[in-house]
Parts: sequence; structure tokens; C-alpha cells
Amino acid sequence: MSNERIFNFSAGPSVLPLSVLETAAAEMTNYRGSGQSVMEMSHRSKVYLGIFEETKANLKRIMKIPDTHEVVFMQGGATLQFSGVPMNLIGTTGKADYAVTGNFSSLAAKEAARYGQVNIACNSEDRNHTYIPAQDALKLTSDAAYFHYCSNNTIYGTEWKYVPQTGNVPLVCDMSSNILSKPIDVSKYGVIYAGVQKNMAPAGAACLIIDKSLAGHELPLTPKLMGYKLMIDDDSMHNTPPCYTIYMLGLVLKWLDSQGGVEGMEKIKTAKAKLLYDVLDESKMFIGCAEKEFRSDMNVTFKTDNEELDNKFIKEATAAGFENLKGHRKVGGMRASIYNAMPTQGVEKLAEFMRGFEKTN
Amino acid sequence: MSNERIFNFSAGPSVLPLSVLETAAAEMTNYRGSGQSVMEMSHRSKVYLGIFEETKANLKRIMKIPDTHEVVFMQGGATLQFSGVPMNLIGTTGKADYAVTGNFSSLAAKEAARYGQVNIACNSEDRNHTYIPAQDALKLTSDAAYFHYCSNNTIYGTEWKYVPQTGNVPLVCDMSSNILSKPIDVSKYGVIYAGVQKNMAPAGAACLIIDKSLAGHELPLTPKLMGYKLMIDDDSMHNTPPCYTIYMLGLVLKWLDSQGGVEGMEKIKTAKAKLLYDVLDESKMFIGCAEKEFRSDMNVTFKTDNEELDNKFIKEATAAGFENLKGHRKVGGMRASIYNAMPTQGVEKLAEFMRGFEKTN
Repeated sequence: MSNERIFNFSAGPSVLPLSVLETAAAEMTNYRGSGQSVMEMSHRSKVYLGIFEETKANLKRIMKIPDTHEVVFMQGGATLQFSGVPMNLIGTTGKADYAVTGNFSSLAAKEAARYGQVNIACNSEDRNHTYIPAQDALKLTSDAAYFHYCSNNTIYGTEWKYVPQTGNVPLVCDMSSNILSKPIDVSKYGVIYAGVQKNMAPAGAACLIIDKSLAGHELPLTPKLMGYKLMIDDDSMHNTPPCYTIYMLGLVLKWLDSQGGVEGMEKIKTAKAKLLYDVLDESKMFIGCAEKEFRSDMNVTFKTDNEELDNKFIKEATAAGFENLKGHRKVGGMRASIYNAMPTQGVEKLAEFMRGFEKTN
Repeated sequence: MSNERIFNFSAGPSVLPLSVLETAAAEMTNYRGSGQSVMEMSHRSKVYLGIFEETKANLKRIMKIPDTHEVVFMQGGATLQFSGVPMNLIGTTGKADYAVTGNFSSLAAKEAARYGQVNIACNSEDRNHTYIPAQDALKLTSDAAYFHYCSNNTIYGTEWKYVPQTGNVPLVCDMSSNILSKPIDVSKYGVIYAGVQKNMAPAGAACLIIDKSLAGHELPLTPKLMGYKLMIDDDSMHNTPPCYTIYMLGLVLKWLDSQGGVEGMEKIKTAKAKLLYDVLDESKMFIGCAEKEFRSDMNVTFKTDNEELDNKFIKEATAAGFENLKGHRKVGGMRASIYNAMPTQGVEKLAEFMRGFEKTN
């Protein structure tokens, strides 16, 4: 038991900026003189709508979201969108392309196949998802309703370094684990969705950015609340939204502004990732799990050639205040998730710890 | 702007116990020496699983939930269950009975009709939902897959004072606005569900109590994450649950214990409601909206015979620190929602304010 905060390398839910948590604590029982907690506010009250609208406007500004697109908050995380995406979009042509580059994109493809014809545009399983297939390796269907991919694979530690070109077929992207880590051209996407619990907010919502022209083609039995058109029309408030999670996102966005927005964050995250990848590249003990050119700046996966040594590393790192470094059970080894809110200092100290561990083991 | 907390009569999201908010604030940046916020914890970590299991166990103890039933946390509030209930349950016989006694039960019935044959067992619209039909007025279908009702109608301020008898047909109940306000016999129910944002926690989850023998009959296109069997089998953790909302529920349950549990709460809420209903019964200005024997102990609806006077009342009450007393836009007038966390003092003061208003107007 200690008063010190750990360095939390969890893949999600994950670390939040300390200043954000401090603001949340300070505003908990009485939000800015309103006499109530944000948790207690009617979602239709002026004071809450102020928070909601400001958060949406800041997200639109920071991500440069064009007027063709709308921001929608839903519940059920990214996983419910594995069903929601095909239920809303596949109906137009009955088929969709899915790039499988890891666990979650594979689950998304399986779920979509219940609602239409799914073409696997690529599958990196042949090299255990350690790479991202190139543009010319994608098998595209010209009349697909959409092309789905996951831009960052948390378990395997790979990241798409290019935006797939799919002609007239709308791009749908699960950006749960790298949204807000760099500028992106939203206009290239039909639908972007993200579980918020990595780079945005505490767990409990999905953030969607939807090209409005794609909404309104739900399959007949789509649950009403999962319909994109309804959620756009009712501004995410058909029923009570996850109000406090959205408030927390608002605080995170203000913190992001203080870091230079997504442009600033891109520099910071690139430098943070380099700290760890430099250790891996120089090490004779640690091996990076992902192929070099596809390595993720959000989730750094590595191991030694010895499972016992992996366990020793994780144990000693935990004792030193570096938590949640154990790799996902599907792949073993180690994983350092270094999302936006992970302080550079935490990554520096982990790099130092890794070098020290190698020397003494 | 003030340091004082208002009396918040919002119908939901609604007031939370001040001590709960204070604990949440105190634990925000470092939960009990863990070095992290509950918001930052991996949902699979020991420290979070401790919170999760304790919360579930306390809910089971407080509500005396039998082993035949399981507690499940889902997202999307009660509204997503308007689809989830029929998707999971109607398949066995293809039909279900719905009691319509207000806005939400009406919406639930409409949504269910998309998935099967819905028989309206009763509809209190003939008297503008000011009453609850009696047992012998219910038109029951012997081979219905379930009978659905909403135990408390927030908009109209009515509450079921009896548990419908439906023979072998399982009872499904939306208890969003009166769960935990009194002891109930869970064994009588097939499925209980509740959006948590009234008597349980901040908005962002639904709590379900499911008779396990009813799970596993999903309609073919049910989104995987909405399947009751999967959620029971994976203990609400098929994907990341709304972790912080569940933590807040845990704090609320500890507070509930300090109030004598649901038995204690029943006494308190009955006394609180009586304070306001006594004012209505004695008043020559205020008129209760619900018929006397069906009046809700959670949502007290009333009006004057004059809309201008209603508005004056709401305005002056707000200025005096009684907020969110405006009735729902469907019915107008006033509504005082006095859920578990509304302090008796707040109700006493409102009663006093109402008496004073009548004297001077």
C-alpha cells in the first residue's frame, strides 16, 4: 500500500492523465458550482448538455472531422459494433471485405459473417499476425458494402502504417487502440469506431464517427438503439447516454490540447515508442514480437527466448512499479501498452529497467 | 455558483449519496494504495476483480437472489433490453404478453413486436396511465414466452403494488426506477432488468438478474454481445464491462447497507413519499396526477389547475435549490423523483416549500 502511483502498462482499460483524474476528483461532489456531481445530472439538463456539446465540438476540432460526418456515442464498446457495423451497413450489397490482422479483426469478421457474405481480404495468421499485409496483397471485392480493418492490433503489437485504398468501397476502421494518437484524414473513412477505454476515457462507451450518407440502411431486425441513423438524429440521446464517461472524454480532450493535440501527440508517442524499440534493437536478450516495419507505437510486444526468464522479468518489473506488462494469454511474453496518457517518464524508466535486467540476467 | 449541493429531484440520472461521491473522489487517483484509479484498472486484474466480485456478492445478498439466478451487467441501459428481452426470450413460443402502463413499457412492447407476436395484456392509456390495471384485468396468453411489465412508471408516477400472477409464464420486469427500494421475491421473476441511473449508480449500465434456465434461446441474428447465455457464461466480461459504473454500484450498495438494506430503504422511502402525498392530499392548489392507490413512492407527479402557476412554482422552487421538478414533456406539471439517495431532509424541505407556496399564491 502506497501513496505513489504505479506506471500502468495495461492494454485497456489503461492509464489516464493524472491531471484529468485530479480534476474529476475535485469536481465530484459539486461540478463548478452547479450543486451536483456530473454523475447526478439529468442528461437533458442545460449544465450537462453544455458538457456534452463542448466535448463533441472539441473532438470534431481536434480530429478535424468534416461536416459530412457525425460523432455518436454508443454503449457496448467496440465489441457491440462487431455486430453493429454489419447490421447497419452490409445490407446495401449483402457483402463486405474484412482484413484480418489480429484477434479483434478476426472476431469482427466472424460476427459480420452472421449478417452477410464476408470476404477475407487478407489474413496475417500465416505469420502469427506479426505483420500487416501490403496494399497489393488485399483481395478487394468491387461491390463490397464496406472494407473493415483494425488499425492497431493490441495483442500482437502491430499497426497499419497506411490507409487501405478501396476505391468506392467505404472504409470502416476499428481505431480503439490508436485513435487520437496521430492526425488522420477522417474524410477517407465511412465509419470510425473506438472503444474509449484506451486513448479516450474510462471504459463504458464506444465513440463512432459516421459518414452520415451511409446511415439508414439497417438490416430489418437491428435493435432500434443500435441504428446509426437514430443515434445521429437523436444526437446520441435516444436514451440516457453514458454521461460520466463522455464528461471524462471531455477532460481528456482538454489535456490533449495541452499536449499539442493529435499533432503533438504523434511526436510524443513516436518518441516514447522509440525508447522501447531502441532497447529491443540493441538487446541480445529481448526480442520484439512484431516485424520491424509494422511495429505498433501503442503496444510494444516482446519476449526473451525463455518463458521462465519472461516470468522473472514480469515479476521484478511489477515489484519495481511497472504493472500489467504480462503479454496477452494468446501469445505470452510481455507487452507494454504506452497509450497517450502513459507519461514519457514511465517509458524512460521502463527502458532503463529493461537494460538493467539484461545486464544482471 | 455555490459550494452548497442542490436538492436534485431529477428522474434519472439522479442524486447519489454524498458519502458515495466523497469516497469516489478520495479514491480517484489512487484506489486504496493500488497506485491507480479504478478507471485505469484492467478489468482482468486482481484488484478490479475484487471490486467486481464484492459488488455482485453484495447485490445478491441484499436482494436475496437465489442460486437459480445470475447477475449480469450489460451496456445500453434498459432501452437496449427492450430489444434484448425479446431477442433472448421470445423464440421459445414466438409470442409474449406486455402490460402497457406508461411510456417505457409502451416502447418495450413496440420494440418486441419486431421480433415476435406481442399481446397487449393491459393498457392503462384509457385513463392516461394514471393507474395500474388489476390482476383480473390482465389478458394473459397461456403459451406466451414471457409476461413483461415495468414496475414503476417514472413519467406518470404510478407503481405496481402487486406482482402479476402468470402461472407458468415467466415474469420479465423493467425495475429501472424502483429496484432496491424495497424487498422483492426474485424467485418469482424470469428476468429483472434495470438501467442503473436511478437507484443504483451513474448512467452507463444495465443490471440484469436472469433465471439461468431461460438463457440460451436467442433468435438467430441476436448480436453476440446481447446474448444472455454468453454474458452469464463469461460473467459479464466477454468484453470490457463498464468498470467504473460497477465500482460506483459497489459504493452505493455499501451505503444501502448502512441504511438497513432494502428493508430499511422500504421504510425510508415510504415515509419520504408520505411527506409529499400528505401535502397533495391536504392541498387545495396541488393535484396528484396518479390515482391514489397506484401512486409511486419514487416519482411523485402533481400539478395545479393552471399551467402558469405550475411554471411559477417550478421557477421559484429552482431558485430555492429544488431542481429538476418540471414534469416530463409528455405530461407537463411537476414531478419530484425521490429515489433512494434523495435525503429525507430534501423531501421535508420540499413539502414545506410547497405548503408555503400554496399560502402565498
